[in-house]
Amino acid sequence: MVYLDHNATTPLDDRVLEAMLPFLKQHFGNAASRHELGTVAMRAVDRARQQVAAIVHARDAQVIFTSGGTEANNLFIKGVAESLKPSQALVSSIEHPCVARPAEWLVKRGWKVRKLENDAEGRIEPGDLQAALAERTAFVSVMLANNETGVVQDIEPIAAAARGAGAIMHTDAVQALGKIPVDFAKLNVHAMSLSAHKVYGPKGVGALVLDKRLELKPLLAGGGHERGMRSGTLNVPAIVGFGAACEVAASNLEEYAIAMEKLRGRLEAGLRELKAVIFGEHARRLPNTSYFALPGIAGETLVVELDKRGFAAASGAACSSMKQGTSEVLEAMRVPPEIAQGAVRISLGRSNTAEDVDAFLSALREVAGRLQQLTAMPV
Amino acid sequence: MVYLDHNATTPLDDRVLEAMLPFLKQHFGNAASRHELGTVAMRAVDRARQQVAAIVHARDAQVIFTSGGTEANNLFIKGVAESLKPSQALVSSIEHPCVARPAEWLVKRGWKVRKLENDAEGRIEPGDLQAALAERTAFVSVMLANNETGVVQDIEPIAAAARGAGAIMHTDAVQALGKIPVDFAKLNVHAMSLSAHKVYGPKGVGALVLDKRLELKPLLAGGGHERGMRSGTLNVPAIVGFGAACEVAASNLEEYAIAMEKLRGRLEAGLRELKAVIFGEHARRLPNTSYFALPGIAGETLVVELDKRGFAAASGAACSSMKQGTSEVLEAMRVPPEIAQGAVRISLGRSNTAEDVDAFLSALREVAGRLQQLTAMPV
Repeated sequence: MVYLDHNATTPLDDRVLEAMLPFLKQHFGNAASRHELGTVAMRAVDRARQQVAAIVHARDAQVIFTSGGTEANNLFIKGVAESLKPSQALVSSIEHPCVARPAEWLVKRGWKVRKLENDAEGRIEPGDLQAALAERTAFVSVMLANNETGVVQDIEPIAAAARGAGAIMHTDAVQALGKIPVDFAKLNVHAMSLSAHKVYGPKGVGALVLDKRLELKPLLAGGGHERGMRSGTLNVPAIVGFGAACEVAASNLEEYAIAMEKLRGRLEAGLRELKAVIFGEHARRLPNTSYFALPGIAGETLVVELDKRGFAAASGAACSSMKQGTSEVLEAMRVPPEIAQGAVRISLGRSNTAEDVDAFLSALREVAGRLQQLTAMPV
Repeated sequence: MVYLDHNATTPLDDRVLEAMLPFLKQHFGNAASRHELGTVAMRAVDRARQQVAAIVHARDAQVIFTSGGTEANNLFIKGVAESLKPSQALVSSIEHPCVARPAEWLVKRGWKVRKLENDAEGRIEPGDLQAALAERTAFVSVMLANNETGVVQDIEPIAAAARGAGAIMHTDAVQALGKIPVDFAKLNVHAMSLSAHKVYGPKGVGALVLDKRLELKPLLAGGGHERGMRSGTLNVPAIVGFGAACEVAASNLEEYAIAMEKLRGRLEAGLRELKAVIFGEHARRLPNTSYFALPGIAGETLVVELDKRGFAAASGAACSSMKQGTSEVLEAMRVPPEIAQGAVRISLGRSNTAEDVDAFLSALREVAGRLQQLTAMPV
């Protein structure tokens, strides 16, 4: 099996599992307990908090651990909305559903949610942002890198504009982490969402990195963990794994990005020979992500046929699943539906080799040839 | 180290870790992915859903996986409140903070929250419930077993009364699971919260078991996982571990309860010799839990001294940490503050032996003797 779906989830790094195992075994204490086992657990959480803070150049006190990226995004949006009077919120049209759906929830609570426009490559239009900020705005949420296209937004000027207008700036950095440098201070945001399982860490843990001057209403209320902003027994083994994954990612970020970009170049050279449309091709993108369509072939069908041949890829909005129809991201990029329905996402990762890419391309050529022949048959 | 704090958290059962490891290694797929790795993950989730449903005699379609008990309780209370017009909600005065705090959140949203009265043993007063239900009530939430005292509520008649008044009935069964039989159908509730790490399963996973006719607004919105009621990438290894832990617990529930009750009897015989006050002593209690105070000795001090001697116990409201002052549960039981401040909780578990109990009692005698001598010194 050649795994080409690293934006959906990544395998756990061996060093990460190694770091987690003592906390799945002998160091099983509740980090809130006052006895020795509790102290050992809390010390491990403190260390992981430093590791997570370090990779995004934040202070450890800014890290609030959550159950994942979805919770971090929901915590920011609902938490900030519950602590402010309703006004305007700005979100991009290409956000992940775990930002887009909570934004819809705001509307029912008297908020005005304006979706920012983007160009055909999926980049936010600065002019539209400026126009939108003329109206009093509580917060702006724009993702750092898109999960489908890999297109990276220029967050710094967006954050500067938001701050200039007195708005709180949030970015969903779940897909960017570990693939490009992510600097909380330099990006100039107030809040940032992260997830462990996209960076060779465990599922079930993420973080909201939050400017300490901001106070959010908690989504999960209870025992008062995480400075009262996220109650619930700390998931110590997963938090330890998240920390370890960040340390590994930070140590090889540059070489990883170069390796991914090289592999993707090889992949896209082959895709172009097949006359593929590559979405967001002219924008700055995550080095591991290629999102494309082959004319006349449904993405779903391609993914199923590739799976049979041992290649794990994703169609449409791949990390979620449950939705039907074509991608909302491609719709926002004004991709015609007949092309959007062909969307396939390849997201490369550490284990992939040039041989994997070549094998994938030859499988794709074979499958595409057969499927195009089928559709070309007279009926 | 003798671990006597199983109500705070439990060590992972070896069989549970064994079941989880393949999903921490080779079977790392996102359960929402359509390729083979995704299918393998989703099949494992389906099996775990059956295992969790089985131990509480529910149907698997009734199980919504969450990040833990705190999230399950918050999801029920906030989710039901957001789907109904504000009216009255009834909760007991001895609920865990992850029920009590969300109930306070309701008040700010126009709800009337009435706290049900309990007797000095911590049992809900049926008369007060009947009186409260005379007013139109949306839901009733009463925990099955208390985390501090271990006192078990008679949920069946409470649920019958709630249903009779047209109210939705919820119970937090987090502490009861694996220690006494918990039967969703027989208890006649609409919703029930569970947690894995209290039953020798992993941290970071729990469930809300929910009558399928009820629809809650999700706390975490996004990709639409868990029938739209809980978005976020499924924590497959933890869910698999939860399933395995439930299967293990279901298989030895009776012998476990008998063993715990015997050990606790031995413990409490020794405590009585030390003139301990045992809270909830005359009520039906979880077989593993003993919550007591020694006259004139602060619980905090006892726990610290016991920790130094290798015994992990809990003081006050132990699984949460962050709070100061004496126990709200003991306050609701009208325990005088000078006794409540002495509260220490011993919660036994699988690894504990009669020798552990004897060693604990002799350490306690020694510590208590020294501390009582100190306080008896002339100043």
